[in-house]
Amino acid sequence: MAIMAAASHFVGLDVGGTTMKAAVVDGDGKVYPSASLRTNPERGQDAGLETMGETIRQSVAAAKLTLADIAAIGVATPGLMDIHAGLILDPPNLKPWKNVPVRDRIASMFGKPTAFQNDANAAAFGEKWTGAGRGAHSMVMFTLGTGVGGGIILGDTIVEGKHSHGGELGHLRIDRPDHGRLCGCGARGCLEAYASATAVTRRAREEMASWRGPTELKEFFTANDDELTAKVIFDLAAGGDACALKVVDDTAYFLALGACTAIATVDPEVIVYGGGMTDAGEWFRAKIDADVRRFGLPFPAKSVRVVFAELGSDAGFIGAAACAKRLAG
Amino acid sequence: MAIMAAASHFVGLDVGGTTMKAAVVDGDGKVYPSASLRTNPERGQDAGLETMGETIRQSVAAAKLTLADIAAIGVATPGLMDIHAGLILDPPNLKPWKNVPVRDRIASMFGKPTAFQNDANAAAFGEKWTGAGRGAHSMVMFTLGTGVGGGIILGDTIVEGKHSHGGELGHLRIDRPDHGRLCGCGARGCLEAYASATAVTRRAREEMASWRGPTELKEFFTANDDELTAKVIFDLAAGGDACALKVVDDTAYFLALGACTAIATVDPEVIVYGGGMTDAGEWFRAKIDADVRRFGLPFPAKSVRVVFAELGSDAGFIGAAACAKRLAG
Repeated sequence: MAIMAAASHFVGLDVGGTTMKAAVVDGDGKVYPSASLRTNPERGQDAGLETMGETIRQSVAAAKLTLADIAAIGVATPGLMDIHAGLILDPPNLKPWKNVPVRDRIASMFGKPTAFQNDANAAAFGEKWTGAGRGAHSMVMFTLGTGVGGGIILGDTIVEGKHSHGGELGHLRIDRPDHGRLCGCGARGCLEAYASATAVTRRAREEMASWRGPTELKEFFTANDDELTAKVIFDLAAGGDACALKVVDDTAYFLALGACTAIATVDPEVIVYGGGMTDAGEWFRAKIDADVRRFGLPFPAKSVRVVFAELGSDAGFIGAAACAKRLAG
Repeated sequence: MAIMAAASHFVGLDVGGTTMKAAVVDGDGKVYPSASLRTNPERGQDAGLETMGETIRQSVAAAKLTLADIAAIGVATPGLMDIHAGLILDPPNLKPWKNVPVRDRIASMFGKPTAFQNDANAAAFGEKWTGAGRGAHSMVMFTLGTGVGGGIILGDTIVEGKHSHGGELGHLRIDRPDHGRLCGCGARGCLEAYASATAVTRRAREEMASWRGPTELKEFFTANDDELTAKVIFDLAAGGDACALKVVDDTAYFLALGACTAIATVDPEVIVYGGGMTDAGEWFRAKIDADVRRFGLPFPAKSVRVVFAELGSDAGFIGAAACAKRLAG
């Protein structure tokens, strides 16, 4: 019984295209110091699985614990997967990995129950456990980065979907395919084509091209195209640049349209936004919030909470640990 | 024990603005003959509750059973409600009813456990139990009528939503508010503004106005505006009328866009369409199906099943009975 009681910690591992990061989390959500290694997907999947194992071991050492203290492990990965089968299929960020049985390999490597999850779903589950969604019974999270990801939690359950595509919120439609912006998925009118960091800079360039007043954005445009990032645009908007502000206002509007669809499908208690753009802070949140009230179904839009994420890039491994906890519990 | 075993039947009651309908359903989904009474909402909510009670009693008699055989009751109603609290709030179809504690009143009237549910959710739950969604683990249902309703079932659970607005699928966005069609909810670009029966006839009128070839639709337009129903349009389309066919093709396209958003949120195993338009049959289903494959996220859209409902207008009371069954355990 003493040994059983001791194994009350969980390891969460979040595998990204560039680095992977793991940490031990205890049953109350207390996070120990993390460990991080380069993913180097080009070295192949067997090397990748070894690196996952090593990152997990390093995270246990960083927590000054031993594997005997670990009740279960959770692994989150990006891209196309079969969550139910515990398989990475063919993720664009982890080429040339293909059909990698991550869950079973990690489980047999450590002899521990192992959970497997999509990284955006895991991030949402992490925010639900100890971050912006704690205490809520239902939550929809949008993660804003190069693309737009997402995760939906109803009750204590991640909406994984029949084909592991639950919460693919970047592909919520906010415009018609016959006249919308082209998305990376091949369709037109997806949220991601309007509100990802890439889409924000693209819209900024278009806005500048027809902008008649003064705007500092033009300096970035003429100087070095690569310097025009979503961060630059948000910083200029915060400083009062009218053109940049128009781009940010539109971003908030597009994000709110996605939120309205989330409301009309699962009607969550809280909508969480995470990712780099949310560094802009409260003034940007307030813009999204106002457009949700304006365009959403009146009754639920009046009450839904619109908040920014709290765990930053730790959300993924914390959520992976939460999946491990759920598996063990 | 004999008495416990005997009470293995459930009553489902579906309350509409014009009529209410109830039937006994046994634990295996076998439906007994139904009873139906006029709702007459204008007589007030106390009269309405009495009529609900009478419809339930008549359905038990129609099944040649007694109340002792009934383990639990389920009631489905339209419009604005608080599902969790068992309250009708302020439904447009049941004026002047307001804040009616339906669940508790029916429960105390019969001394039976009573479930309360939104009618569109109940219809989806009914199709999941014994209709087009049976055997599936997740399902999204669109009900096409004067408006567009919906219900989402994940596992064996109806997605009710925090504010009882889960599955309000008529308000999925398929177009932008700044250039979309005006919806009854006050916003622009909702699915309902494109694909309800009302919207179909409106689009048909617009199509005719600019149509250059021959079309029989014009006869209805010039003869009597009221005669132009969605059914007329679908019948003419089935007969090869090019203008009517364009309207139906567009309807399938808009419905598919809604389905694609359902896929990107909850990624269900099956998408079910119910309501009058589905009387058109397989050729219309095939059109929706093709557009789902074309515009949906490739991986899930390849595998999702797109089917028409099987229970017709019985789905509501069958689903209400399913809610009762679930409550009784």
